[in-house]
Amino acid sequence: MRVSQLFTKTSKTVPADETARNAALLIQAGYIYKEMAGVYAYLPLGLAVLENIKNIVREEMNGLGSLELIMTSLQRKELWETTDRWDDKKVDVWFKSTLKNGTPVGMAWSHEEPVTNMMKNYISSYRDLPTSLYQFQTKLRNELRAKSGIMRGREFVMKDLYAFSRSEEELQEFYDRTIDAYLRVYERVGLGDITYLTYASGGAFTQFSHEFQTLTDAGEDTIYVSRDKRLAVNKEVYTDEVLTQLGLEKSKLEEVKAAEVGNIFNFGSTKAQQLGLHFNDQSGNEQPVFLSSYGLGITRLMGVIAEHFADDKGLVWPEAVAPAKVYLARLGTEPETVKQADELYDRLTAAGIQVLYDDRDARAGEKLADADLLGIPHRVVISDKTVSSDTYEWKRRTAQAAEQVKLEQLLKTLGIDA
Amino acid sequence: MRVSQLFTKTSKTVPADETARNAALLIQAGYIYKEMAGVYAYLPLGLAVLENIKNIVREEMNGLGSLELIMTSLQRKELWETTDRWDDKKVDVWFKSTLKNGTPVGMAWSHEEPVTNMMKNYISSYRDLPTSLYQFQTKLRNELRAKSGIMRGREFVMKDLYAFSRSEEELQEFYDRTIDAYLRVYERVGLGDITYLTYASGGAFTQFSHEFQTLTDAGEDTIYVSRDKRLAVNKEVYTDEVLTQLGLEKSKLEEVKAAEVGNIFNFGSTKAQQLGLHFNDQSGNEQPVFLSSYGLGITRLMGVIAEHFADDKGLVWPEAVAPAKVYLARLGTEPETVKQADELYDRLTAAGIQVLYDDRDARAGEKLADADLLGIPHRVVISDKTVSSDTYEWKRRTAQAAEQVKLEQLLKTLGIDA
Repeated sequence: MRVSQLFTKTSKTVPADETARNAALLIQAGYIYKEMAGVYAYLPLGLAVLENIKNIVREEMNGLGSLELIMTSLQRKELWETTDRWDDKKVDVWFKSTLKNGTPVGMAWSHEEPVTNMMKNYISSYRDLPTSLYQFQTKLRNELRAKSGIMRGREFVMKDLYAFSRSEEELQEFYDRTIDAYLRVYERVGLGDITYLTYASGGAFTQFSHEFQTLTDAGEDTIYVSRDKRLAVNKEVYTDEVLTQLGLEKSKLEEVKAAEVGNIFNFGSTKAQQLGLHFNDQSGNEQPVFLSSYGLGITRLMGVIAEHFADDKGLVWPEAVAPAKVYLARLGTEPETVKQADELYDRLTAAGIQVLYDDRDARAGEKLADADLLGIPHRVVISDKTVSSDTYEWKRRTAQAAEQVKLEQLLKTLGIDA
Repeated sequence: MRVSQLFTKTSKTVPADETARNAALLIQAGYIYKEMAGVYAYLPLGLAVLENIKNIVREEMNGLGSLELIMTSLQRKELWETTDRWDDKKVDVWFKSTLKNGTPVGMAWSHEEPVTNMMKNYISSYRDLPTSLYQFQTKLRNELRAKSGIMRGREFVMKDLYAFSRSEEELQEFYDRTIDAYLRVYERVGLGDITYLTYASGGAFTQFSHEFQTLTDAGEDTIYVSRDKRLAVNKEVYTDEVLTQLGLEKSKLEEVKAAEVGNIFNFGSTKAQQLGLHFNDQSGNEQPVFLSSYGLGITRLMGVIAEHFADDKGLVWPEAVAPAKVYLARLGTEPETVKQADELYDRLTAAGIQVLYDDRDARAGEKLADADLLGIPHRVVISDKTVSSDTYEWKRRTAQAAEQVKLEQLLKTLGIDA
């Protein structure tokens, strides 16, 4: 994409009302726009990052054999009353409204109830199980405070997966496979090293749920990490008894701030029993279905990535999620310079490489500062000087100094066989 | 995809509370699920159709040079008060709720106001214009009645594009190009012949807006069509004066029912003046920006397609939007039959063809009825009989009878060079 065609603009000033570093940087760089506290629009470059993250998650969920769908935002009161999760005293994040005829409706903050209820149409026999489904959905949650930028929004994108199993063992088998899939997601977006499977409080059915926590000072959680065992314990269940149970030694745990980038729950057969989802087993006996659910906040993950990798010059995207691989800055307006920059842009684009081509009539300093702020992994500069020396200036976003390289070497670095 | 892996099931019975043919068929075939009146979930096959339609629309919008983003559902009262569209007496489709601190919020039913307001951050000079942006967004509209299935939902997916221009002429040029892009969309989804550019009531700034109306008895609008001029007039502006103005003869117009599958508006500079969106022209004088907006209901278009092509056996998808190109039904369980069906499935899939492979242990009649109900364009049957005669049974969904063909001919028909 040519930067001249991009309607967003970078800004030198940090928004006064934005206290979160992730959102401040993303607003400055033109990735997001703040509609109100905790409510952000995703501009073209921001949407590109979101889609890259979604595609990684989608591949891993498809790999589990799960099928994608999209549930509704509008929710029926009766359904949530069945499980005692309609009352604002029980669930304090509902946005509610009313239909013209006075019927109350809620805006979905989660989907266990509607998904489980829907599956009564499709599950009746043991032959229909196990099965699972997932969605990328915009959830609304009426948070009292929203001051962590896109890491805790009142409106945010979540991947939520629901699995239906015939037994506790079958559930557990899927649960364990999903843990592996989640760990691959964090690895692929560049957070593998600092993301920990974490024991957290469970529900009526199990002692623990599991979270995936990424170490960051911007996180809202406190966890106790065992770096050698690659495990952590959330403060909420951090007791001597639990540590003994998990075989962890207090002296080897480190207290750190972390952001929850995924959480998975075993509901056992409770939810299905409440909502009447059963199946007939091979002997023809009616049995309740076992439910587990698997959340992964897409926009939050984007916020954590932004926050974690950023430096004093701006954002630093891992290549897997970056909105473009190359920031091509054309400095100078000599015909030969323009020609060479246009040609490289066409060549990289033809090879399937996403390029942000800064073709603007702007000062060199502005272009280079924007390249840094936007956080694109590779920066290539073509100037009157590089053209006359038959080289290209190349720099990784994370490197200190630029290098002068020949075309062949540049293409090879960018993954093209010349 | 293997049908045995699909959690949805077809149903012989029409839902009792569903009066719209499009929704009844889509529910029966397992494409959608009804959460409440006018509120439908899109199941895996339904989501595939939606994504196919979105991709066609996306290509055409990108072709206009427009950039995709995603705005927010939660809306600020103050913004909509500025243009006098917050009051329920002025706009009667708002769903409203309140933040924890008592601040009212609305759920977006359209985005002219927030988009125009946001662009104050990015437009200041004539050099920033013209520009445009679009999104695929789930809109909520508190409709009094919702009885047209997915053709009028309380929750639905819309593509909305907003264009910002420096002058009426520049606006008109984009407006005309967008009309062409819209007509290409309807052509590509198979509705070109029966979709008409239609004059409808305008607003404060222009006498007319334009709609795109598809002829169907399921439509909620009445229009007057000139088949030879490829134009129509909505009943709401159907007067002798207007006909004279448009050069249309009353005697040559036909009254028909139609469904609005797109509508485009010229807001002139009104909206920008209300919200304070200006630019400095080349002389440094402040000028208001001209706004036009372009809606296209994605879920409604899916409903119209479903409704229009369906026959007494079920859905009939045009290939461009079908969730799969081929329904491969394996009848019989002889090892050679299973082997041949598996091989064809693998071969078509490897060639990039989407196949619904009915590998279930089900009766032949059930499989063939499902193939019809699901409306997949090509049906291929592999049975013990076809295997023994070294042929394949092939039928278009729209054909009366099946044909016995050799493998080479089958592959050629499906677009594969053998």
